[in-house]
Amino acid sequence: MAPPDNHPASIANQLESLPLKARRALWAELPNDSRGEVLAYLHDDVLQTLLQEMPVEEIAEAAEQMEAAEVADVVAMLSEEAAQEVIDSLSTEDRAQVEMALQFDDEQAGRLLDHEGISVGRKRTAGQVLRHIRARRLPNYTDKIYIVGARKQYLGAVALADILEAEDDVPVGELPMIDNLDQVGPEMPLADMAALFRQKHYVELPVIGPEGIWLGRITLDDAMGVIQDEADHNLLGMAGLDEEQDLFAPVLTSARNRAVWLGVNLLTALLASWVIGNFEDVLGKIVALAVLMPIVASMGGIAGSQTLTLVIRGLALDQVRSDNWRALLRKEIGVAMLNGVVWALAVGLIAWLWFSNPIIAMVIGTAIMINQMVAVLAGLAIPMVLERFGMDPALAGSVILTTVTDVVGFLSFLGLGSLLLL
Amino acid sequence: MAPPDNHPASIANQLESLPLKARRALWAELPNDSRGEVLAYLHDDVLQTLLQEMPVEEIAEAAEQMEAAEVADVVAMLSEEAAQEVIDSLSTEDRAQVEMALQFDDEQAGRLLDHEGISVGRKRTAGQVLRHIRARRLPNYTDKIYIVGARKQYLGAVALADILEAEDDVPVGELPMIDNLDQVGPEMPLADMAALFRQKHYVELPVIGPEGIWLGRITLDDAMGVIQDEADHNLLGMAGLDEEQDLFAPVLTSARNRAVWLGVNLLTALLASWVIGNFEDVLGKIVALAVLMPIVASMGGIAGSQTLTLVIRGLALDQVRSDNWRALLRKEIGVAMLNGVVWALAVGLIAWLWFSNPIIAMVIGTAIMINQMVAVLAGLAIPMVLERFGMDPALAGSVILTTVTDVVGFLSFLGLGSLLLL
Repeated sequence: MAPPDNHPASIANQLESLPLKARRALWAELPNDSRGEVLAYLHDDVLQTLLQEMPVEEIAEAAEQMEAAEVADVVAMLSEEAAQEVIDSLSTEDRAQVEMALQFDDEQAGRLLDHEGISVGRKRTAGQVLRHIRARRLPNYTDKIYIVGARKQYLGAVALADILEAEDDVPVGELPMIDNLDQVGPEMPLADMAALFRQKHYVELPVIGPEGIWLGRITLDDAMGVIQDEADHNLLGMAGLDEEQDLFAPVLTSARNRAVWLGVNLLTALLASWVIGNFEDVLGKIVALAVLMPIVASMGGIAGSQTLTLVIRGLALDQVRSDNWRALLRKEIGVAMLNGVVWALAVGLIAWLWFSNPIIAMVIGTAIMINQMVAVLAGLAIPMVLERFGMDPALAGSVILTTVTDVVGFLSFLGLGSLLLL
Repeated sequence: MAPPDNHPASIANQLESLPLKARRALWAELPNDSRGEVLAYLHDDVLQTLLQEMPVEEIAEAAEQMEAAEVADVVAMLSEEAAQEVIDSLSTEDRAQVEMALQFDDEQAGRLLDHEGISVGRKRTAGQVLRHIRARRLPNYTDKIYIVGARKQYLGAVALADILEAEDDVPVGELPMIDNLDQVGPEMPLADMAALFRQKHYVELPVIGPEGIWLGRITLDDAMGVIQDEADHNLLGMAGLDEEQDLFAPVLTSARNRAVWLGVNLLTALLASWVIGNFEDVLGKIVALAVLMPIVASMGGIAGSQTLTLVIRGLALDQVRSDNWRALLRKEIGVAMLNGVVWALAVGLIAWLWFSNPIIAMVIGTAIMINQMVAVLAGLAIPMVLERFGMDPALAGSVILTTVTDVVGFLSFLGLGSLLLL
């Protein structure tokens, strides 16, 4: 609820909060020399809505204010021709950096390579390094200095605090190197890179290329962006909204994105209906079953989605693994059995009182027990299998789960009903 | 998938991945002098499982290695007596800091106050400041120096980079102050504080108390913890798992937490069943309605949860506000109308082919149209109303939404069915 200010991030947030027309109007009012910085703060989907409106020269001008990784993002959204024009407009050094970033796809750490990190030879003294820092300004997110050999091979890193503390004439190679410092490879998946930052609270990490060459660094700033995107993806993905980071995406685009999800869900709903359709006989005779059947499916869906959510989070945090899923399975089965019994009794009692029929009560109670167990097993297995096959549990998990709990719910309830009530 | 190492964060992650018994066994093996650091990386729920097993003296020993904010977290989980014992065991300075943190609740920025920030008088020279930093070691997450008056009143902040660049004898008060730097009040809600870091990519921010006194700082490290917790909360909350950050919470605890959610959902399912129960008449005569009715409810639920998720994310990012919800409403209605028509026709056609009855097709098509519109309105209104009344949209939103889409779905479908088919 901060008051609007001139910070590029605040302007970016304001742009993201506006419908398309107003967004473009505000964009048109921004002075040219602040646009690059604002673009750097936008989510990709929103960025694209603005790039569509900008002449190539304007994009090139904005690119001058952006870091290589950000320019690479922008360039990747342009037509081949426009992309080349923007790249050609850059200085030789910037161009080389952008072209390097573009060698990696947008799921690899190399795409976020930062070239502002400080690297020095091991014979340089602390005093020389300090003068070097003073001469070129301390880059943001700097807490270490990288020590490299003559061919830029990575030798280790020294804390900036240690450089500041050291006597002027001590060679940095003699200062204590940081122990067990993780390294990032340029082809490392962003998720793995972000996990290092998330777990160990780094401010920056070295990026080491083939033959141990120091290529640059990744900063916490960029890692945070990845972490945020992951959280966004998990949240939006579970509602099938993965492609809709733009609150004001055009109606047609939004409708199309969501239609896919609605369509997939229709298939699962049809499957459930088909299951129900096989029991027309008993449904026609005992209407109470039609009245009660959504309860079985919905209780199963809830229990399953609880386990599913827990496992999706556990996979994202690297806490659900092949060495502990059995223990998790045991725990979740315990939970399902407890809740299965409790809610089977509760719902059974309600059904009995409602329809004065103890057999209906037994049927719904048993069906709920069965569905609770299946729900928990599905909630655990589905994301792990999806992950094993390289698919995204957050995106596909909940549809598959609901299909299972609906089908099993209707099948067990109506199946038992046919057996015992006809 | 990083190999296990000795970093406290890695040990913490390993502890969180273990069932209770194995967790306690690993904990018992850890050397005493690394325990404090490990505790600091644990989620609250897991932290509690370990604290329960530790004698107070051991907790006090671990507390020595922790920062004030972390000790405050631990102390808040202990019995009053044990808490006092831990606090009493601290040095005078640490005790004062912990007691200060405990003046604020765990949703306020003051709880995360960091006392390592560097503050200096405006007449100190850059050289003096540099010597000061060298003498006491540059704290982690430092990129600015705070300038304060004689009574510690906050005057502004200077970039560490500017201090390093300045001539030795320039007073820091004459260096350029950072423009528009945000400030944090000790009572600021954590969510607002975290939003500043998330939006503007700060490394640290000053905390200013009553009468403009500089109290200390908040670091990006702590802000990231809050941002992660928020993401966790949004994801887990939507499945009613807010209290279950511990993957291996005891079965009874887990079952109880989830039972609450299952119970709430049972109430909504019963409401839906009651609606259905009012149409026993038509259901007994036209079994096709029982077969098809879950489709209407489930398509509405999906559409509604898509809008709901988008709005919950928008509220969290401060992008859905009173000044733009009308525009969002227009867009979402447009999406609902498009998808309503498309899926009404599709499902209508399928129903026609399946049951060879054009009236059933018309009934289900119309019901789907109605439910899509209601779903989108509910998805937009529910989280905004909850937020207005200070309730948590991520936690209560999806249950209320499903209730609405189930009730409206069954009511419109079976209601129209009664009117047109009996």
